[in-house]
Amino acid sequence: MPILNAFYAQSGGVTSVINASACGVIETARKHPDRIGKLYAGRNGIIGALTEELIDTGAESAEAIAALRTTPSGAFGSCRYKLKSLEKNRREYERLIEVFKAHGIGYFFYNGGGDSADTCFKVSQLSQSLGYPLQAIHVPKTIDNDLPLTDCCPGFGSVAKYVAVSTLEASFDVRSMAATSTKVFVLEVMGRHAGWIAAAGGLAADHGIPVVVLFPEIEFDKPRFLARVDELVKQHGYCSVVVSEGCHYPDGTFLAEQGTRDAFGHAQLGGAAPVLAALVREKLGYKYHWALPDYLQRSARHIASKTDLDQAYAVGKKAVEYAAEGLNAVMPVIVRTSDEPYKWKIEAAPLDKIANHEKKMPKNFISKDGFGITAAARRYLAPLIQGEAPPPYGPDGLPVYVTLKNASVPKKLKKFKI
Amino acid sequence: MPILNAFYAQSGGVTSVINASACGVIETARKHPDRIGKLYAGRNGIIGALTEELIDTGAESAEAIAALRTTPSGAFGSCRYKLKSLEKNRREYERLIEVFKAHGIGYFFYNGGGDSADTCFKVSQLSQSLGYPLQAIHVPKTIDNDLPLTDCCPGFGSVAKYVAVSTLEASFDVRSMAATSTKVFVLEVMGRHAGWIAAAGGLAADHGIPVVVLFPEIEFDKPRFLARVDELVKQHGYCSVVVSEGCHYPDGTFLAEQGTRDAFGHAQLGGAAPVLAALVREKLGYKYHWALPDYLQRSARHIASKTDLDQAYAVGKKAVEYAAEGLNAVMPVIVRTSDEPYKWKIEAAPLDKIANHEKKMPKNFISKDGFGITAAARRYLAPLIQGEAPPPYGPDGLPVYVTLKNASVPKKLKKFKI
Repeated sequence: MPILNAFYAQSGGVTSVINASACGVIETARKHPDRIGKLYAGRNGIIGALTEELIDTGAESAEAIAALRTTPSGAFGSCRYKLKSLEKNRREYERLIEVFKAHGIGYFFYNGGGDSADTCFKVSQLSQSLGYPLQAIHVPKTIDNDLPLTDCCPGFGSVAKYVAVSTLEASFDVRSMAATSTKVFVLEVMGRHAGWIAAAGGLAADHGIPVVVLFPEIEFDKPRFLARVDELVKQHGYCSVVVSEGCHYPDGTFLAEQGTRDAFGHAQLGGAAPVLAALVREKLGYKYHWALPDYLQRSARHIASKTDLDQAYAVGKKAVEYAAEGLNAVMPVIVRTSDEPYKWKIEAAPLDKIANHEKKMPKNFISKDGFGITAAARRYLAPLIQGEAPPPYGPDGLPVYVTLKNASVPKKLKKFKI
Repeated sequence: MPILNAFYAQSGGVTSVINASACGVIETARKHPDRIGKLYAGRNGIIGALTEELIDTGAESAEAIAALRTTPSGAFGSCRYKLKSLEKNRREYERLIEVFKAHGIGYFFYNGGGDSADTCFKVSQLSQSLGYPLQAIHVPKTIDNDLPLTDCCPGFGSVAKYVAVSTLEASFDVRSMAATSTKVFVLEVMGRHAGWIAAAGGLAADHGIPVVVLFPEIEFDKPRFLARVDELVKQHGYCSVVVSEGCHYPDGTFLAEQGTRDAFGHAQLGGAAPVLAALVREKLGYKYHWALPDYLQRSARHIASKTDLDQAYAVGKKAVEYAAEGLNAVMPVIVRTSDEPYKWKIEAAPLDKIANHEKKMPKNFISKDGFGITAAARRYLAPLIQGEAPPPYGPDGLPVYVTLKNASVPKKLKKFKI
């Protein structure tokens, strides 16, 4: 077999552990010099391939690459850019092949969510349609946890841990203050289409916290919500609300669209949390606080789940091993073999079964009243937030996160306008 | 010397380490059985003293008390309740004495910020004015870091660490996304009157992050702010903004009051962050994200500063030792004896010099352009966020935080209406 170069790119919203996958890809590629020559990374994702902005990962020391395991964000830059179908956008696919050819690239590792799985699948088909030999492997990553076939998606477990820990901590705070001050705390979390992340807030209930979870899967019912909050406050003295950003009314209007207007009169400046908080104050008279951690939740490497971290590394490692074995158009998926003790393994799944399929949260994960999670959800979620994997800290009290050199590979081709 | 009982109460907004002070008080009191009999805690702060809602801390095991060191929030409940002056509110002071007498209380430990230092000072004067022998010691606690005489205030260091770490992590995220997506990230932090907490966000600059800090001490200048953000985005591709909730226009109007209106038409629903974010989008056209962690920042025991934790415990411990030595009307303060290596010790300071004095952030902590921190600020802040002191985690992946039994002491007096 010839030695071919490889290309790796990060795609879409980054996470606190996507660099651990990069670490798995790079460290494993370096162990296969008989198959893989240079490993190039795309600067800012697939855009780097189109514009021939390649990064030579070989210029990075073993220490720097190892440090990716404990560094959040996308070390090579990511992008939100979806390639259209080959028919609609033949020019870009041909450009990819041109760049791959020019740099002797025979392996394509694409690290992302559903959209990038689709792109990766299209690229995997280029061998036949454009007559260029290429093995394309998708490396799963998405806090949305919506990729099919895999038990969970790297990135999700750490957000879930952040949300569960934050809900617990803030709820302890509110409980302390409730006698004379704040009685309702509203935490808004990510997840526009599915309640996976919001569900993690429900785990705080196991620690005695009265918590109301609002899912995108359940249409918001104002009177029932207020009645539930009031009931919990009367019973416990306080309550916490974990609301998904995707929570909406029966007509599809997001809570976040209801009413908040910015200084320029634009709607939807704030989020669902301030809307709910104002509602609680207006209708129940309770003092509230609300939080919207936004990027903090997905970048919080300091509170990453060890399970999630290990899986993020493992899918990167396996992707390279699959490539070295000659596989194409596959994605390493996480297979759960036991709930308790939690056990998992990695298998290869065909990309055509993954691209354009969105995994929904099972209906039986939401409690009958629509405001909490079930035992099935707990069984699923609990292992994903297990274990701690803190980054190293420097003498200044801040985590030691690596910034790579990201040395450019000399260009060989003409400019390409995207 | 007679053996007298002691009373401890938590006051005002709680922190991630106020329970460490409680731990210091209780563990140390248990080492002085020759002077201190029972240690009662006020249920929900000073209200518990007024209503005779006393908690018997003796009912808690040594393990439970030790676990307070790693548990955020106020384990006995706190309150926002300020006693008026003795002249205006003789009834409440007389009630305090009545309760203290009924339960043989000769030591009063009050754990809070400026307002509670004032209350504590008033209580310390009761010996003379109401003829009741009592030693009152204030235990410092406030994330606002505004108590005088002490180098810093327990609770602040951990919030500072949370803000510095979060700014760093979210900035790495934004840097990854900036090529095609978010270019400006706005993080709103606590601190209505002083920029201590916002200043901590400036520490991320030492890690290469282009960050604009907006302080309450500096009047907001819209054109200059926009110019600075634009300059940084053009230079680095992105920038982060850390804004204090107290940031305001020259006329005193808070940014948070500018424009955001909730579903009921009320102003000031959101915060400063969404206002700034909208401004950036409107005037510069950059995609933004914003976060408002609210209670998460002050309850985040999982990322507490070890320096802060150690100091929180030490002031609790010293408070009891001072009481055992016969001191009255004092507060243990933190004295910095060296910047590098950081060294500190605890001394007793007179409460009359602390009550009603607010410490401002030094002017020379803010850089000349008003958007960052100086070397002096770094020298001051850096040691306060040094060291990690994570809580234990359970097999479910969540921190093990203790909830005490909080057994009530039988009442001996008639009801009291507050």
